[in-house]
Amino acid sequence: MKTDIQIAQEATMLPIKDVAANYGITEDDLELYGKYKAKFSDEFMNSLDEKPDGKLVLMTAINPTPAGEGKTTTSIGLAQALEKLGKKSVLALREPSLGPCFGIKGGAAGGGYSQVVPMEDLNLHFTGDFHAITSANNLLAALLDNHIQQGNELRIDTRQVIWKRCMDMNDRSLRNIVIGLGRKVDGYVREDHFVITVATEIMAILCLAEDIKDLKERLSKIIVAYDVDGNPVTAGQLNAVGSMAALLKDAIKPNMVQTLEHTGAIVHGGPFANIAHGCNSVRATKMALKLSDIAITEAGFGADLGAEKFMDIKCRMAGLKPDAVVLVATVRALKYNGGVPKTDLAEENMDALKKGICNLEKHIENLQKFGVPIVVTLNAFVTDTEAEHDFIRQFCEERGCEFALSEVWAKGGEGGIELAKKVLKTLEEKESNFKVLYPDDAPLKEKVETIAKEIYGADGVTYEPAAEKMLAKLTDLGFGDLPVCMAKTQYSLSDDQTKLGRPEGFNIHVRDAFVNAGAGFVVILTGAIMTMPGLPKKPAAFGIDVDDNGKITGLF
Amino acid sequence: MKTDIQIAQEATMLPIKDVAANYGITEDDLELYGKYKAKFSDEFMNSLDEKPDGKLVLMTAINPTPAGEGKTTTSIGLAQALEKLGKKSVLALREPSLGPCFGIKGGAAGGGYSQVVPMEDLNLHFTGDFHAITSANNLLAALLDNHIQQGNELRIDTRQVIWKRCMDMNDRSLRNIVIGLGRKVDGYVREDHFVITVATEIMAILCLAEDIKDLKERLSKIIVAYDVDGNPVTAGQLNAVGSMAALLKDAIKPNMVQTLEHTGAIVHGGPFANIAHGCNSVRATKMALKLSDIAITEAGFGADLGAEKFMDIKCRMAGLKPDAVVLVATVRALKYNGGVPKTDLAEENMDALKKGICNLEKHIENLQKFGVPIVVTLNAFVTDTEAEHDFIRQFCEERGCEFALSEVWAKGGEGGIELAKKVLKTLEEKESNFKVLYPDDAPLKEKVETIAKEIYGADGVTYEPAAEKMLAKLTDLGFGDLPVCMAKTQYSLSDDQTKLGRPEGFNIHVRDAFVNAGAGFVVILTGAIMTMPGLPKKPAAFGIDVDDNGKITGLF
Repeated sequence: MKTDIQIAQEATMLPIKDVAANYGITEDDLELYGKYKAKFSDEFMNSLDEKPDGKLVLMTAINPTPAGEGKTTTSIGLAQALEKLGKKSVLALREPSLGPCFGIKGGAAGGGYSQVVPMEDLNLHFTGDFHAITSANNLLAALLDNHIQQGNELRIDTRQVIWKRCMDMNDRSLRNIVIGLGRKVDGYVREDHFVITVATEIMAILCLAEDIKDLKERLSKIIVAYDVDGNPVTAGQLNAVGSMAALLKDAIKPNMVQTLEHTGAIVHGGPFANIAHGCNSVRATKMALKLSDIAITEAGFGADLGAEKFMDIKCRMAGLKPDAVVLVATVRALKYNGGVPKTDLAEENMDALKKGICNLEKHIENLQKFGVPIVVTLNAFVTDTEAEHDFIRQFCEERGCEFALSEVWAKGGEGGIELAKKVLKTLEEKESNFKVLYPDDAPLKEKVETIAKEIYGADGVTYEPAAEKMLAKLTDLGFGDLPVCMAKTQYSLSDDQTKLGRPEGFNIHVRDAFVNAGAGFVVILTGAIMTMPGLPKKPAAFGIDVDDNGKITGLF
Repeated sequence: MKTDIQIAQEATMLPIKDVAANYGITEDDLELYGKYKAKFSDEFMNSLDEKPDGKLVLMTAINPTPAGEGKTTTSIGLAQALEKLGKKSVLALREPSLGPCFGIKGGAAGGGYSQVVPMEDLNLHFTGDFHAITSANNLLAALLDNHIQQGNELRIDTRQVIWKRCMDMNDRSLRNIVIGLGRKVDGYVREDHFVITVATEIMAILCLAEDIKDLKERLSKIIVAYDVDGNPVTAGQLNAVGSMAALLKDAIKPNMVQTLEHTGAIVHGGPFANIAHGCNSVRATKMALKLSDIAITEAGFGADLGAEKFMDIKCRMAGLKPDAVVLVATVRALKYNGGVPKTDLAEENMDALKKGICNLEKHIENLQKFGVPIVVTLNAFVTDTEAEHDFIRQFCEERGCEFALSEVWAKGGEGGIELAKKVLKTLEEKESNFKVLYPDDAPLKEKVETIAKEIYGADGVTYEPAAEKMLAKLTDLGFGDLPVCMAKTQYSLSDDQTKLGRPEGFNIHVRDAFVNAGAGFVVILTGAIMTMPGLPKKPAAFGIDVDDNGKITGLF
């Protein structure tokens, strides 16, 4: 069987200017990055305001196995299939991070015959957006510590610095560090932490900003620390906004690449779906809507995290309204949710499937609460059996859900025709009555409780004293009207990753909270959330190589 | 008076494909990065092997003031002037670092009417080369600490880790840090240090590598630490080479931009000139030679550091032979070398000039030792007086040196006609008998002493015990045949930055040494060498902004 990178490298790409031409985009509207990648010019983006929007379809998933359930692959396959059916379709996807690429997970550009290409570029530096974010983040950190070093006019409390440095790398040794050692000229000693770039507020801001003006306003609101009186100190007060925005001026422009079947894909931004909102940029989604009949976008992790944040954060802020949701399941993940260990997922196990399907059931119920019609799709694996497929199909149809088997990994767009037809049928026949889950003016704790009960199925929420105190403080500071961004394990509907299926009789335990005032949400921390992954004993990096002609091997 | 960025933004750039076409390069040979930047395809670079080389001119300078003496500006002006005289000229220059750009020094893309453009892009992320280097450097660091974490099979002595993390930022707080705090999963606690990206060995390697194969060989030789028995541990042993090379596969391709007068400029790589060799990449220089009648390149800091390393490291390794050297002086720097404080350099002071000109004299003598003909040029400032200019001209002519006043800052290529004519005359009439200063097989200490006595004018060299011990160890390990890379202050010919002019009766004091086995030189540390600059009280970042249309202001 061919690997993803073999399939990608054997594919014939069209020059990106030709792909763009299919969507009425001229070469002058593009800023090329090599022959197969481009950013859109500002002029072109502004010129789209008049155009009508296509339909918006969100791709989400049940609670995943550690390998993920193929949302990106299914998104790409669906878009390819829609094109085969004569519908103009454009993808809006997240950019991959270098960290997982060299760590456990490998790349993130779809798989099999449903990939975006050039996959090597996508998985490595792409157009440099993440590096720009890293630079802006670390410039702010340097300016912050320099402010303290040069007299600390703002009276920053060095015990209450919130802003962290970042790196687009899985590097556990940087999670907890002490900086500023040495002599007087080497700074003040304090504890610090690195996070991975995709976990930074700048990443979230870039993905939510409408334009440079909005970007700068958001950057200026970032709270970097508290002063000795407990008042917030912002990036604006540190005089950091102009230079950070200058570093981000190109990164804020969406990128265009193509799928293996030359469907347009706008790949832009990629915040973590635990500590941040897990969606590609608002600009990418809006652009995809302008260019297509049907725009396909995705949200990270399962629907309890990704879809909820897509609806309650991204759609709320950007005024987006999804017309349909595709909920991806796999036989493997359903069996995993039924208690089968990772190593045994390739064997038929109807009992486990019947036990684990409650996870799918809960996600269907949850998505119905947002008023958006649902199509369930099963991302087929070669190890699946017909009996397993039939059972899931029947389960969905009994619940009034459209269902389609998806074989886009093996067959590309051709394998997504059934799914595409079901999506088209849903868009034609079923109306979206999209609504967010809670109003802006609900108190922060009420927002948390609404999500915990309605989405996670919890009995209630408990708060550690630090969390109680911080939520009260954030409300006092005027952040009570912001949406909340739940940081929770992706493996369970609860905050305990061992509770699979459809857990009941549990509380959500809130450990702490903080505000991302620039991004515009309050992060609610449940359990221990990883913001800087580590490398495994045999990192994916060991298998990656480049030959004398610059051809890369071993990316997956 | 217009600022550099105003001049740059008012200029009409040609599409880079049109600039390239002037040198016989087709659009297919280029990988475009927007409309005004491009990398060369590997196929194109390989196709050049057959072409004859043009002449190679090195731009260097006397010991500078802290503001620098305008080597880049003069290089650009000279190339523009040569084009006006009908000679095909191509520049090979270093890429600027983000650190100084946000710190004290500002950007580095020439000045006035002798700039390379687009200057904002050049000074910010450009084509991402430095970010790729940062990533490769930090991937190696993460793999190193992960190796220790996962069982430390190679028995790395955590007290003898040499490899440092890096960031392209002036961030003093990261100079001395402790990493790996927290729990067991958060790594081993050890002291660590960040350096600025331009001070890394990867930067030096990228600039010395002939191709990807050579790059990988060099990467594999990097010594990251010593084991508990004192044996070197390499990046090759850590299995890091393939993935690092994959990160660098595009960064190793030279970049093409243009001057304000549309002369081609190959801007690629930019190692520090103190701890590393301070020259743009070998590939850039070789490409400039293939594309032009006359290639102009530069080396960092004064000739005691930059030119010496250009000759003894870069030319030695790459088989390059400079045909002429242009030695840049300024009235300001000569007066500074004559003891005038920075604040008073704008006033005529013939006494100080007469006192400080011994610095120029010594550099002329030094360059003659390499057997290369010299043209001295005076980078004119509006504050200079005619009496000052006349004195310097006469001084040079008395020493058999060609001399030309350069007004390229104010007048562009037109202001460099006199210089260009002198360079052409020199290339036609004077033969280059280029030779390196010392043979490969001289012992390391002999190499250091040769440079100290011949170039710096020292009486001798003293060694601290750590340096003695390390030089003996490096010789035992088989590194005795490598050239040495002197890390020394740029402000003085001696290792004491307060000794201006032409110091005499001093020793060079070697504090320590280490090998850059991948780059292929032994670094000799004299005095305290800054590898991670800090930000000043009012960083340049405060003045940088971007408007709603993406236009950048305040870069200088």
